[in-house]
Amino acid sequence: MRIINTKEKEFKKEFENILQRAKSDIKGVSKIVENIIDEIVEDGNLALKKHIEKFDKWIVKSDDELLISQDSMKKAYDNLDEDLKKSLHTAYDRIKAYHEKQLPKSWLDFEENGTILGQKVTAVDRAGLYIPGGKAAYPSSLLMNAIPAMVAGVKEIIVCTPTPNNEVNELLLAACYLCKVSKVYKVGGASAIAAMAYGTQTIKKVDVITGPGNIFVATAKKLVFGEVNIDMIAGPSEIGVLADSSAKANYIAIDLLSQAEHDEMASSILITTDENLAKNTSLEVDRYLENLSRKEIAKKSIDERGVIIVASNMEEAIELMNEIAPEHLEVLTQNPFELLPYIKHAGAIFLGENTPEPIGDYIAGPNHTLPTGGTAKFYSPLNVENFLKKSSIISFSKKAIEELGEPCALLADTEGLTAHAKSVRIRLEDK
Amino acid sequence: MRIINTKEKEFKKEFENILQRAKSDIKGVSKIVENIIDEIVEDGNLALKKHIEKFDKWIVKSDDELLISQDSMKKAYDNLDEDLKKSLHTAYDRIKAYHEKQLPKSWLDFEENGTILGQKVTAVDRAGLYIPGGKAAYPSSLLMNAIPAMVAGVKEIIVCTPTPNNEVNELLLAACYLCKVSKVYKVGGASAIAAMAYGTQTIKKVDVITGPGNIFVATAKKLVFGEVNIDMIAGPSEIGVLADSSAKANYIAIDLLSQAEHDEMASSILITTDENLAKNTSLEVDRYLENLSRKEIAKKSIDERGVIIVASNMEEAIELMNEIAPEHLEVLTQNPFELLPYIKHAGAIFLGENTPEPIGDYIAGPNHTLPTGGTAKFYSPLNVENFLKKSSIISFSKKAIEELGEPCALLADTEGLTAHAKSVRIRLEDK
Repeated sequence: MRIINTKEKEFKKEFENILQRAKSDIKGVSKIVENIIDEIVEDGNLALKKHIEKFDKWIVKSDDELLISQDSMKKAYDNLDEDLKKSLHTAYDRIKAYHEKQLPKSWLDFEENGTILGQKVTAVDRAGLYIPGGKAAYPSSLLMNAIPAMVAGVKEIIVCTPTPNNEVNELLLAACYLCKVSKVYKVGGASAIAAMAYGTQTIKKVDVITGPGNIFVATAKKLVFGEVNIDMIAGPSEIGVLADSSAKANYIAIDLLSQAEHDEMASSILITTDENLAKNTSLEVDRYLENLSRKEIAKKSIDERGVIIVASNMEEAIELMNEIAPEHLEVLTQNPFELLPYIKHAGAIFLGENTPEPIGDYIAGPNHTLPTGGTAKFYSPLNVENFLKKSSIISFSKKAIEELGEPCALLADTEGLTAHAKSVRIRLEDK
Repeated sequence: MRIINTKEKEFKKEFENILQRAKSDIKGVSKIVENIIDEIVEDGNLALKKHIEKFDKWIVKSDDELLISQDSMKKAYDNLDEDLKKSLHTAYDRIKAYHEKQLPKSWLDFEENGTILGQKVTAVDRAGLYIPGGKAAYPSSLLMNAIPAMVAGVKEIIVCTPTPNNEVNELLLAACYLCKVSKVYKVGGASAIAAMAYGTQTIKKVDVITGPGNIFVATAKKLVFGEVNIDMIAGPSEIGVLADSSAKANYIAIDLLSQAEHDEMASSILITTDENLAKNTSLEVDRYLENLSRKEIAKKSIDERGVIIVASNMEEAIELMNEIAPEHLEVLTQNPFELLPYIKHAGAIFLGENTPEPIGDYIAGPNHTLPTGGTAKFYSPLNVENFLKKSSIISFSKKAIEELGEPCALLADTEGLTAHAKSVRIRLEDK
């Protein structure tokens, strides 16, 4: 693995490349995706079926075939191996418990003059989850998207997932059963996003679309934003590790590889104050690489996008990591908690050597749908609030408007809005 | 004003038109806006100056002229008429107090096996506010955008506002001074959004862009979403009124007009159970229209986009209003609070006859930047959270990973991610 020192002359340029790691080609595929969306809007199911034939290579004979039956979901769940079922339940319970802690409450606040102000929290009516299928079918993604929607109180949760060759991932179906998903459709890619955003004869329009996907899915989500709400636009997975000399090189190495194995475009970045740790981690990465089932992918990712940075001190290391704003951040230092005040930008923060990143992918509880590519500077992890929205509540008493009406009307006057001013003043005139 | 009854045959079709009220032509202007953004990305300030010359009709001689000086902001504030200054301060104080109630806290949660889970709340580093200028310069928008950013703890708040003929709205400058805005730039339209999203020689890239604007601004915000976060994509203003026979026709009429005077594209909708109230409101609208300074705009809006719906009962009225999901909703009924449980979709809810909508535009406290065009089904009012983001916190103890490591690794196995599984298992092997 490449090692660079912040003192090297070319460091600044190299670091700039790391910051640009996630430049995606949304613009390059926009036209294609726009056309797909237009087709769905115009032709509905007909277009869906055409796209399935083209991309997933099977022929949909009737509209009913787009829907996966509740029966097959139950069967998938019933047929689960006992250990796996138990693990799935453990994950489900922990994810649910964590997200329940995020649930905001409606509130009211009262003033002595009779004013009541507040906020009403309401779940969206319908949520649409996109779950990738085929090779990269991750049932854990279903839990991570469905549970916050469920906890938010969304009545109708639908799922779209591609089924290449009409094959469905059984564990995904079992997870849908467990999460009481309303409907699962065999629809994938940009078509699925368009179908959920605009509706078709079979798929009802939703209010919010969440879930991971490739560049076509990400682009479609961006294009339908405004027609529906979306969670975020996500790119390849990534991990940053902050480590001092107390950290174990083999732990760091396998944790870096756990992101690298996702995707050739994944980024794995260690920043450490210890040059020896840097060298040893690099060696350990090579050692572990040999035995990975996804060795080719992981190796390409590590070679092209992996980097170890040796920093002069922890302060510099943290500053660089904040600039990177990684999706996952492991803090492997003597006392990781004391660094929390300085860590500003990261999707999820894993503290200490017993908290490997994969524990957060499956079972810890917090969401694994996290902002990538530096967007942790402004996006949050997927959470209950993605499936809620708020309404302001305002109630003025006669006394309140008598106190505040004239200042309000004056401001309206200066903005030239006479009906605004009048609307307030006729209340003041009515004694 | 047009009155329709839900029992009429054509009602369904008419109602469908109301639901489609906000179909904007973002696609139609996308190409133009894309070009503007590309120019800013490539040429920075040079392009900014070119666009100012073209759209705002004045020549920028040096980069420094893009920035409004702190001195002129202070002067604008000092020169304010005393009553106006007092009103501005009242608005500022009330808006600040309301938004402070929204501020979420970082939290930690502990388990008996030593697990610590939580959420760290962090303000974004830089926020960019877009405030329209020229004819529709609303200083109140500055308060409504700057105060939540300030309450969130954003260190650098910048403002872009167009200055047609190089003229600046003095009250806007005074409001910027009051809110301690870091920098105000004389840059407007899609160029301003691009400059804040990508940065130029003079304007630093921000993390979040909020604020209202025309179709070009809205389109630019959509196009830069992902590069930065944005609040929402907003369209013309609108008001819905739910009223029973206890409501006063003249109050409703002037409140409807207060939205209609904003914009010819604004929508004003009354749904009532009382046919007489419907007729009287229509007459009152005509009467008030005569004396409005913005009569032409308001009349066009009322004629083309205003409607009174007579419903069979309040249940039906609320159901229709939830479908409409108006930006502003006034509830003028005998006991408005008891209807709150049934109101699902509205940006802000104004309860009772002493709470005219304009009171929420200026002084009540809640934000006046609200979801329009039915997007209250999934967007919230602008709020403190738009300027914050969260990071998940995960810390496992040795005992915790011993309990949960194997179920986690099993799930990783079934997803074919061996490095994930290994990353957990090497911790279990290290006794």
